[in-house]
Amino acid sequence: MSENTIPASLPLRNDLIGEEPYGAPQLDVPVCLNVNENPYPPNPDVIDTIVERVREIAPTLNRYPDREHIKLRQAFSDYLAKESGARLDISQLWGANGSNEIMLQLFQAFGGPGRTALSCDPTYSMYPEYARDTFTGWKVVHRNADFTLDVDRTIEAINEIKPSMVLLTSPNNPTGTPLPLEDTERLLAACEQADVAGAAPGVHPILVIDEAYVEFRNPGTPSAVSLINKHENLAVSRTMSKAFAYAGARVGYLAASKGIIDSVRIVRMPYHLSAVTQAVALAAFEHTDEQLSRVAHLREVRNQTAAWLKSQTYKGIPLEVADSESNFLLFGGHFDNRERIFQELLDRGVLIRVVGPDGWLRVCMGTDDEMARFREALTQVLRIVEAE
Amino acid sequence: MSENTIPASLPLRNDLIGEEPYGAPQLDVPVCLNVNENPYPPNPDVIDTIVERVREIAPTLNRYPDREHIKLRQAFSDYLAKESGARLDISQLWGANGSNEIMLQLFQAFGGPGRTALSCDPTYSMYPEYARDTFTGWKVVHRNADFTLDVDRTIEAINEIKPSMVLLTSPNNPTGTPLPLEDTERLLAACEQADVAGAAPGVHPILVIDEAYVEFRNPGTPSAVSLINKHENLAVSRTMSKAFAYAGARVGYLAASKGIIDSVRIVRMPYHLSAVTQAVALAAFEHTDEQLSRVAHLREVRNQTAAWLKSQTYKGIPLEVADSESNFLLFGGHFDNRERIFQELLDRGVLIRVVGPDGWLRVCMGTDDEMARFREALTQVLRIVEAE
Repeated sequence: MSENTIPASLPLRNDLIGEEPYGAPQLDVPVCLNVNENPYPPNPDVIDTIVERVREIAPTLNRYPDREHIKLRQAFSDYLAKESGARLDISQLWGANGSNEIMLQLFQAFGGPGRTALSCDPTYSMYPEYARDTFTGWKVVHRNADFTLDVDRTIEAINEIKPSMVLLTSPNNPTGTPLPLEDTERLLAACEQADVAGAAPGVHPILVIDEAYVEFRNPGTPSAVSLINKHENLAVSRTMSKAFAYAGARVGYLAASKGIIDSVRIVRMPYHLSAVTQAVALAAFEHTDEQLSRVAHLREVRNQTAAWLKSQTYKGIPLEVADSESNFLLFGGHFDNRERIFQELLDRGVLIRVVGPDGWLRVCMGTDDEMARFREALTQVLRIVEAE
Repeated sequence: MSENTIPASLPLRNDLIGEEPYGAPQLDVPVCLNVNENPYPPNPDVIDTIVERVREIAPTLNRYPDREHIKLRQAFSDYLAKESGARLDISQLWGANGSNEIMLQLFQAFGGPGRTALSCDPTYSMYPEYARDTFTGWKVVHRNADFTLDVDRTIEAINEIKPSMVLLTSPNNPTGTPLPLEDTERLLAACEQADVAGAAPGVHPILVIDEAYVEFRNPGTPSAVSLINKHENLAVSRTMSKAFAYAGARVGYLAASKGIIDSVRIVRMPYHLSAVTQAVALAAFEHTDEQLSRVAHLREVRNQTAAWLKSQTYKGIPLEVADSESNFLLFGGHFDNRERIFQELLDRGVLIRVVGPDGWLRVCMGTDDEMARFREALTQVLRIVEAE
């Protein structure tokens, strides 16, 4: 696209002047490992189901879709029961066009002028944009050097800042760090005692856990959805983009107390979720086992790739790799010119992402073939740097 | 769904407390004439194209969609050239999940705290919700008794209130009233001279024309898209829900100056429009002529229904019918208990809408058979009232 050029005569919000649209470059490159997509396209049988379900609903497209997307919320419930053992009613579930829209709806309901959202960085770079778009203040506590959460400091910040929302990511993006369930429980307990600046007494912050990548966690690690029935102030965001390989279908969902779902229902656009999106999402849930078996393979690829990266050196020092329970790895740690490593890889047809703290790069897990090309390209690049 | 129950401990925005989700009741009734849907389901050949296009893109669903939806924007451009004779570049077009999302994006870019949107009521009841959701002030000028715009008074209000957005609907919902092009041009000229409260000097309001129903206008009436190349501050919202019978597919679009589109790109969610939505929308544009011929039939049905309604009486006085260039009619004018008329029709299997000024009801155009049932039911109801 051409560049953003906005004439000064247009009444663009003052704080948006000079801003650019968010998003990684969409480049046409042989090996794309930059936006944490699942590398496996839907199987032919999944495609057949998608097509069948779309054919079924196509004759109804002149009518508005089910605003409450009841069938899909039941499918979310069934899936979470299977995947995480959580027993949630459809009144505790909600879908939207990607977890982006879930987050926006949460900020619309619980943020706004005079309110603050608190998070722990480094984390997903889109969060401050939700805050900006909803006039919500944005504060962060820094994570520990190993990217785990500094829970004590975060609880202090909750009590000092009195945010309306605490927003944490597990596994975290771009570091892959999971949030242990006992930490989530401590944070929930702190939220349930804390005040919210500008709200009535007895109002407490909500804790939002973004679990976009949670299916890639190690076996045995629980999901925060297991805590929802015990905590009114807990919201867990999920997506079909990653484990279900459905980034193109744009389906995110929210598991939370009924009160939080009802709050989101006030600010959602009526009919926000198309009949086609609902049908396509339901089609994928007919093939859950297949999807999860691929997730298991990507988890192995991640572990192997992490071990391989740790065996490589940059200027004589082994590469660091952040402990990841996701489908991507943050690696390097001491790249003194990460833009160059990124560009050298791109020149070899491998697109990764410059993101996270300086000195680090992020790569997401591709097919076995794509990972071989990544390893080959990185080996070459590290050798060139070593020889200089 | 169960009722909204939001515990007082949740930090819901103070101004949302007690609010209910927006939307007409979704009832299972034989004749639904309440939400201005197109009554004709897609033809078998349209369904085949939809299915074919979805099958083509299904293997790419593991990847994020084209964030800039270039092919679809080209299709919007081609369609507007054909439908309205407008020559617009893809940089002047933008799609979203229904014109709801288009409007929300406009409010996110150009509204906000300290800013005001101005409209002319009675008009679409969703507009104040966009304002509320984006903390934008909301002011209205009243329309004339025949629901035409009071252009002089609106221009006065632009100069007094100094809004950042002027939002008008043509044809207006729920009245069906078109906005003549010369009035649009006068309002544009006024906007181009006016200041915006809280903005720098030289910043002027944008004029947003919501043309959701514009394809139903009478032959020869121009669309505001014909003015876009001459006016940087003009935005025209359109939808595929009505003329394309695609309410379930959720495709709205915006035709505007490149600067307005670029402003919206800053606040849009990345990847807001799924690959499936893009494919399904493109499929419909392969059958434009077919859709527009049905629009022509619905226009005739509207004219015949308006004539029939005018021949009916309520308590001895002929029904009034607002002049409509849309696919619905606002009728009655002197119903002293419109809720009862609504309920008596519903008891006979015909769902219309209680909306607009007191004394009026709105009915949208259905199939020939549905309209026969509507006329039969209304005849019965009016006879009962007459006999009391």
